[in-house]
Amino acid sequence: MPFTLPIQIGPTYHDVLLAHERIKPFIKHTPVMTSESLNRITQAELYFKCENLQKVGAFKFRGACNAIFSLPDDVARNGVATHSSGNHAAALALAARLRGTSATIVMPKNAPSVKIEAVKGYGGNIVFCEPTLDAREATLNEIVKKTGATFIPPYNFCPVIAGQGTAALELLDDTPALDLLLAPVGGGGLISGTALATLGKSPTTKVIGAEPANADDAFRSFHAHTLIPQTAPNTIADGLLTSLGNITFSIIQRYVSNIFTAKEETIVRAMRLVWERMKLVIEPSAAVPLAVVLEHAEFFSGKRIGIIFSGGNVDLSKRFW
Amino acid sequence: MPFTLPIQIGPTYHDVLLAHERIKPFIKHTPVMTSESLNRITQAELYFKCENLQKVGAFKFRGACNAIFSLPDDVARNGVATHSSGNHAAALALAARLRGTSATIVMPKNAPSVKIEAVKGYGGNIVFCEPTLDAREATLNEIVKKTGATFIPPYNFCPVIAGQGTAALELLDDTPALDLLLAPVGGGGLISGTALATLGKSPTTKVIGAEPANADDAFRSFHAHTLIPQTAPNTIADGLLTSLGNITFSIIQRYVSNIFTAKEETIVRAMRLVWERMKLVIEPSAAVPLAVVLEHAEFFSGKRIGIIFSGGNVDLSKRFW
Repeated sequence: MPFTLPIQIGPTYHDVLLAHERIKPFIKHTPVMTSESLNRITQAELYFKCENLQKVGAFKFRGACNAIFSLPDDVARNGVATHSSGNHAAALALAARLRGTSATIVMPKNAPSVKIEAVKGYGGNIVFCEPTLDAREATLNEIVKKTGATFIPPYNFCPVIAGQGTAALELLDDTPALDLLLAPVGGGGLISGTALATLGKSPTTKVIGAEPANADDAFRSFHAHTLIPQTAPNTIADGLLTSLGNITFSIIQRYVSNIFTAKEETIVRAMRLVWERMKLVIEPSAAVPLAVVLEHAEFFSGKRIGIIFSGGNVDLSKRFW
Repeated sequence: MPFTLPIQIGPTYHDVLLAHERIKPFIKHTPVMTSESLNRITQAELYFKCENLQKVGAFKFRGACNAIFSLPDDVARNGVATHSSGNHAAALALAARLRGTSATIVMPKNAPSVKIEAVKGYGGNIVFCEPTLDAREATLNEIVKKTGATFIPPYNFCPVIAGQGTAALELLDDTPALDLLLAPVGGGGLISGTALATLGKSPTTKVIGAEPANADDAFRSFHAHTLIPQTAPNTIADGLLTSLGNITFSIIQRYVSNIFTAKEETIVRAMRLVWERMKLVIEPSAAVPLAVVLEHAEFFSGKRIGIIFSGGNVDLSKRFW
């Protein structure tokens, strides 16, 4: 019998390296910060990769940039499109502008005005639809058909995953050898990219996903070894409401070492600690890994831990405590 | 008539350089950050020196460190003391701990518990007194007499001024040549140190003080060429309530190019813009220079401007907007 190579599905460490070369001129190489006060509280050695300081205020800009700058010129010319009301929409709008093309964003007509303004501010075209999944998809398909724009999904898409992995790549470059690397899990784009980057760059570092207990589809899927969709998530971490995709789940299953959850009150406490002690504005989703460290102290204490602060886009008129 | 050298009063550029050498092992070399969004809004090129990320969350740690590490061993052994309920108290407590000595802080008994906890957290001994200036000074004098501790004033004191100047020294090292350099004015320690550092390091850069219109003693003193004490200040910028001292005023008169004021609502707007666009928590006092730039756009637009974010110690349970 001749030897057959296994079929490689999805992106690899090599794609993360290529993504980094591709997007380097456009992204910020964000700083890694530390806090003596948080080290004392957690009894661990924490290194925070500040993607809240990334352009558009979130790591999402990395994936959007990689996806858009991977397109051939004649395809890019027709623009890109997506449905999102969060950071992916703003990221895609800015990345498209930098590529010299257009981004069309399908948004539910009840989207918060602060998010609509953000996308407009980066030059995105907004098309409103009814606030249902069916309406979103139908509207998007129509736009793609009419304009020839390329659909850039928010997370279950190889170039996006590879792009998100570049945050961990930089973090691992800028810190001493880490025992653990934590990132929040929503659709799974960031944690998958992080796992791929770590596998190649620092294989002894374990990658751990952090999820709100009130939106724990990844936790349940991981332990059941099968993809279980999110049902009725109810969390302050509004960037983590989505379910995993088939690509992100398969990467998580293979390369993520574990997934931990945190309670709502711990997420709020972690977020407040970061604002107060580190003087950094992070959004609730970005606080979930630190919340996990606080809540599972017996596992994390004494370890050298990288944490990705995924974003800092908060509606400041809201009250969190 | 023989030539007589003028008497040199107060610290010089050289003292700032010496201070930097002395405190370098203990302070953070804080980052300089920029924001495309704020550049667009102000039509200027802004470089923010992030002393909100300094230890104890404020530039005050620089001056306290320089003062304490300037003391001879046998003097330092008896400890240091001050009266303050703000950042200087916390800064002195931590600097004393690093020197291996003690700090006694006289605080009015109605001081906010959040400030009392901060000083305790850094290992300071607190002595409470009646909330009057007389009681403060009497209590402090008693402590100094009894313990032999050295009184470290918060701003009108040469080693403190020289220490505060090291923030501008780093900023001028880390940025391209600046047209203007702005810092908030309370007691005048930061702006005086900044003026001395700039005079030596980048003499073509003009130093400008920024003050709340509702606490404008420095503005009035500067223009009247005589020291006018603060009367009934009423501003959200709670770090800028104090009057100038004779040393800080004489440095400001000679080396500061101008002082501008900003309205309360502009200070709040500037603070919110920084939280929102830069994802940095700054305290109201730290927002005053940006408020001045926003309010006097005709003067500042088109210029390359350094701004010192003086601190980030905010009571997060308070509502600013």
